[in-house]
Amino acid sequence: MERCFAMPFGYNGKILRVNLSDGRISIERPNENFYRRYLGGEGFVAYYLLREVKPGIDPLSPENKLIFAAGPLTGAPIPGCGRNSVGAKSPLTGGFGEAEVGGMWGAELKRAGFDAIIVEGRAESPVYLWVHDGEAEIMDAKHLWGKDTGETQTIIRRELGDNLIRVASIGPGGENLVRFACIIVDLRNAAGRTGMGAVMGSKNLKAIAVRGRERVEVYDPNKLRELSRWLNENMSKFRFVNDLHNYGTGAGMDAGAASGNLPFRNFRDGGFPSPEKLDARTIKKTISIGMEGCYACSVRCKKVVRIGEPWNVDPAYGGPEYEALAALGSNCGIDNLEAVTKANELCNRYSLDVISTGVTIAFAMECYENGIISSEDTGGLELRFGNAEAMVKMVENIAYRKGLGKILAEGVRGASKTIGRGSEKYAMHVKGLEIPMHEPRLKRALGLGYAVSPTGADHMHNMHDTGLASSGPMLDALSSLGVLEPIPLEDLGPKKIRAFIYYVDWRVLDNCLLICDFLPWDFNQKTEIVRAVTGWNTSAWELMKAGERVITMARIFNIREGFNKKDDWLPERFFKPTRGGPLSNTSLDPNIFRNALELYYEMMGWSKDGVPTRARLEELDIGWAYEYLK
Amino acid sequence: MERCFAMPFGYNGKILRVNLSDGRISIERPNENFYRRYLGGEGFVAYYLLREVKPGIDPLSPENKLIFAAGPLTGAPIPGCGRNSVGAKSPLTGGFGEAEVGGMWGAELKRAGFDAIIVEGRAESPVYLWVHDGEAEIMDAKHLWGKDTGETQTIIRRELGDNLIRVASIGPGGENLVRFACIIVDLRNAAGRTGMGAVMGSKNLKAIAVRGRERVEVYDPNKLRELSRWLNENMSKFRFVNDLHNYGTGAGMDAGAASGNLPFRNFRDGGFPSPEKLDARTIKKTISIGMEGCYACSVRCKKVVRIGEPWNVDPAYGGPEYEALAALGSNCGIDNLEAVTKANELCNRYSLDVISTGVTIAFAMECYENGIISSEDTGGLELRFGNAEAMVKMVENIAYRKGLGKILAEGVRGASKTIGRGSEKYAMHVKGLEIPMHEPRLKRALGLGYAVSPTGADHMHNMHDTGLASSGPMLDALSSLGVLEPIPLEDLGPKKIRAFIYYVDWRVLDNCLLICDFLPWDFNQKTEIVRAVTGWNTSAWELMKAGERVITMARIFNIREGFNKKDDWLPERFFKPTRGGPLSNTSLDPNIFRNALELYYEMMGWSKDGVPTRARLEELDIGWAYEYLK
Repeated sequence: MERCFAMPFGYNGKILRVNLSDGRISIERPNENFYRRYLGGEGFVAYYLLREVKPGIDPLSPENKLIFAAGPLTGAPIPGCGRNSVGAKSPLTGGFGEAEVGGMWGAELKRAGFDAIIVEGRAESPVYLWVHDGEAEIMDAKHLWGKDTGETQTIIRRELGDNLIRVASIGPGGENLVRFACIIVDLRNAAGRTGMGAVMGSKNLKAIAVRGRERVEVYDPNKLRELSRWLNENMSKFRFVNDLHNYGTGAGMDAGAASGNLPFRNFRDGGFPSPEKLDARTIKKTISIGMEGCYACSVRCKKVVRIGEPWNVDPAYGGPEYEALAALGSNCGIDNLEAVTKANELCNRYSLDVISTGVTIAFAMECYENGIISSEDTGGLELRFGNAEAMVKMVENIAYRKGLGKILAEGVRGASKTIGRGSEKYAMHVKGLEIPMHEPRLKRALGLGYAVSPTGADHMHNMHDTGLASSGPMLDALSSLGVLEPIPLEDLGPKKIRAFIYYVDWRVLDNCLLICDFLPWDFNQKTEIVRAVTGWNTSAWELMKAGERVITMARIFNIREGFNKKDDWLPERFFKPTRGGPLSNTSLDPNIFRNALELYYEMMGWSKDGVPTRARLEELDIGWAYEYLK
Repeated sequence: MERCFAMPFGYNGKILRVNLSDGRISIERPNENFYRRYLGGEGFVAYYLLREVKPGIDPLSPENKLIFAAGPLTGAPIPGCGRNSVGAKSPLTGGFGEAEVGGMWGAELKRAGFDAIIVEGRAESPVYLWVHDGEAEIMDAKHLWGKDTGETQTIIRRELGDNLIRVASIGPGGENLVRFACIIVDLRNAAGRTGMGAVMGSKNLKAIAVRGRERVEVYDPNKLRELSRWLNENMSKFRFVNDLHNYGTGAGMDAGAASGNLPFRNFRDGGFPSPEKLDARTIKKTISIGMEGCYACSVRCKKVVRIGEPWNVDPAYGGPEYEALAALGSNCGIDNLEAVTKANELCNRYSLDVISTGVTIAFAMECYENGIISSEDTGGLELRFGNAEAMVKMVENIAYRKGLGKILAEGVRGASKTIGRGSEKYAMHVKGLEIPMHEPRLKRALGLGYAVSPTGADHMHNMHDTGLASSGPMLDALSSLGVLEPIPLEDLGPKKIRAFIYYVDWRVLDNCLLICDFLPWDFNQKTEIVRAVTGWNTSAWELMKAGERVITMARIFNIREGFNKKDDWLPERFFKPTRGGPLSNTSLDPNIFRNALELYYEMMGWSKDGVPTRARLEELDIGWAYEYLK
């Protein structure tokens, strides 16, 4: 590695700002150090939400801003760099909302000349945004309103006359302001969590279509080729990458059930009896018709599936990821792969987050089984655990806010408030965001991650303790950050918290760079990629600090919105064992968990109440953010 | 860069432990993670002092331990890796004592099979230690006692029959327990600060002679060669390296005088009128007979000089570095290069630290001029600023504790206590360590560094603000850590403190790795060197954290010894302008300085009283050290 000097490249990015209320479109060119401090993706989301969104606004009002952001690596010709991020104040949590998504859209946005789009205001009637070759136009979308995401993409491509246009859009879920509506990209990828699709719907923004022909500039193409070559030559040595390449996510449901990681019946029970029925290996042998990949990626982990009568699953919407298989499957007590796949397709078609959808339906099932809601409420549906037809029907009801779906469209926190009668204890969420498909009674730092993630219960700001319990890729990777020995699964002591913090800084950095964490790059290689693409004389130190900077900014956003220490807590269910299964004798201890939480605050340089100190903000080069804590 | 995995190399180091009280010699083999956490050098010093030296002991008692430590890079065939560190509880400060030194000795220690030597106890009569080829012997040194360092080296080499033996030794200064006695290596390099030579003397240890024939193992020799090649091809592009290569330190005394950086008359006055007389460029044209270098180094910044009658300077002792030129020269109001060079030679001959010696003599001169001491006290010497002969004579008097020299041998803090009568205000020290030759009224973060360095006023745990005030190598280097814009010279605000902390973490890391900071390696290149030599899958993050870890451990050592916030302060002189010169209208503001100090504590994750928090210790993977704070 040659010695680099300060800023030799002249990173030259553009940000598009579109106000849908008055139709103003402008282009901003932040200086290079802005890019270097906040990078992109979640970093931009945190920056613009903190600086530009007034505290206390209704997330579904025109005052919210919806930010689509690529990262500094997006579009570079190397695997793992095809992602983008979407953020806004979340209508599901009332706090920091952000989700990342793969596919081709992010790279196309860069090729169209932009790093990010800030959408403001609200259009009077439905519109879509057409971004191409350094320009943007607001287009009428009245004819698209009510259409699903597939129809939307087809019509837009046809009317703009270009089949290579990439479309991010919402279906009826987003239009109907389902609080956990997502944004669908290329039909089979979802910016899933925290209800970004509802924000899009609230703005009367049906879609953003992008197309560009610019080449994404790379500072050192030879270095980048060398890194790509390493990946291609070594990828097959990583078992987790092989599994992703061959099956996609969800190969290993049996192991998940055996360890207790696989949620079963709304996180209540253990020992889901038929995990192999939902396994990605089973998909490969049955409904799969191939695999697809994101931009420039050789892992190609995206399932393509087809199912005929009676479920009729359209291959355009892709196949279910692990989160869908578990949320709509085992967590609802369902092992019917075809039904789960159909529900997944409907979620993509209607733009609903599969995790929140599955957890919300499981919540309703548990309410039903406990007599809190009845078949009167469900319109006659026997909404019991295991009823696949009812589950699929509920997906549609939620998207269209039909019957009970209207209540469930508020997410489990909102729904349980409306339903009352003790249903709150079945509402599996943190800060309003439904719990993903990883078990905090097993992975305890992951549980802490659910508690403290600024987005609520989230697996994209989180660490899986299992990876650290023995030698393997995670320990290899973390060793470069100074985590030198394995840490037992059940540990929630200082060493685990330290590893958790380092890992989460890294994950958040991934969310800013928009580099896929399914690639086996270690920290030094990621640093090399950033250096090679941007020309910045950056280091692992600066990049880790960027991750910490952004998670701290997101924390400040939530504090300003009124969140406090009490919100950093898990549903009580996790402090008791599961009914049956491998975790029937173990659970989180609330005292240990509280200690871990407080230690986390302290290690982060926050007060005992979880508020970042001024000195820490200054150390992170965001002293300006202190005013938002006053 | 290929992805590395955890610990592939099996770093296989040995530490020699020698108890001089009972003659026991043992060899320890810490595990690889010990090396990776504490690295070597100052890291080992901090570790062993904290773990093994009981609080409150007399630094000159057998209970103190004297640690000689190389680093993980020492002896690798690449420039800048020939240094070692020496540490003990300091007899000058009563706190953390540590100094680094160049030359060949460190590399030879590694070739002899050891990373470090821990010297315990006290020999009944003078001894020296003979370390060679994985073995060690305690040798009689009665015949060496009283000899200067040159004679000592000559006799040892002769009696052991090997002219390639490398010797670290003390002369009369160390023997006579001058509290700022240093340890001299290869005659012209000094482990100068904090009185390590006095500790050596107190143990009746005259010298450590080392010789080895092992090759220092390197994990990736090709990578190391590539880095060496980069240096050789690019070195000349760095002006500061060129200056070092051509002249050694001290080229630019005129610029120092013009900016106000060059101390003049015990830091009292400004505008030293004849800086060019002491300049390294002048040395080159007059008394220089060549340049030498440390192990494997192509910079070769070590002056060799010869002077005939009347001063008779022996070339074996090398020429004066910048610190000597200023401390024994301008700071004593002296511009007689030959006298200064002689005083420098005597310091090396007698094993006295040139900085403390010069500052102590300047202190005495100011006392003399103010009538606090008289010619009766000085044995008739006219100890005025500018009296070169008196200065040289005082060096000898201090080494032999003759007359006033007996009092001055205690350093300025001790001497001013004995002398009293208001002399304390002329005692330029922090925590008992005399101020080096860099002006804190000009370089204000450097002033903060004097205040907070665990060793007291020290330029080896410090940053020079000038490097950050405009574009140049320091900003280039710091940019890789996220310091992206120049920061004005006079600034002591959050951005400066942040840069200071990052820089000092890095400097302390250098003191652990024992890599010379005169080489223009940037942070990523240093990381590469560590990876190439050790095979560790390390990163800039882990290494910066190691620097922070070690400075925190040193802080804890001092707290345990009773130091507190009050000790983190500068002599009052620096809060007033100089008499005349470029700084006659400016000085440090005590309120701004106090704010900076407190912000520093907070950014370090310490309490308002400067005590590291438990969470911070855990985050640095030294939770074990918390017990020492109770």
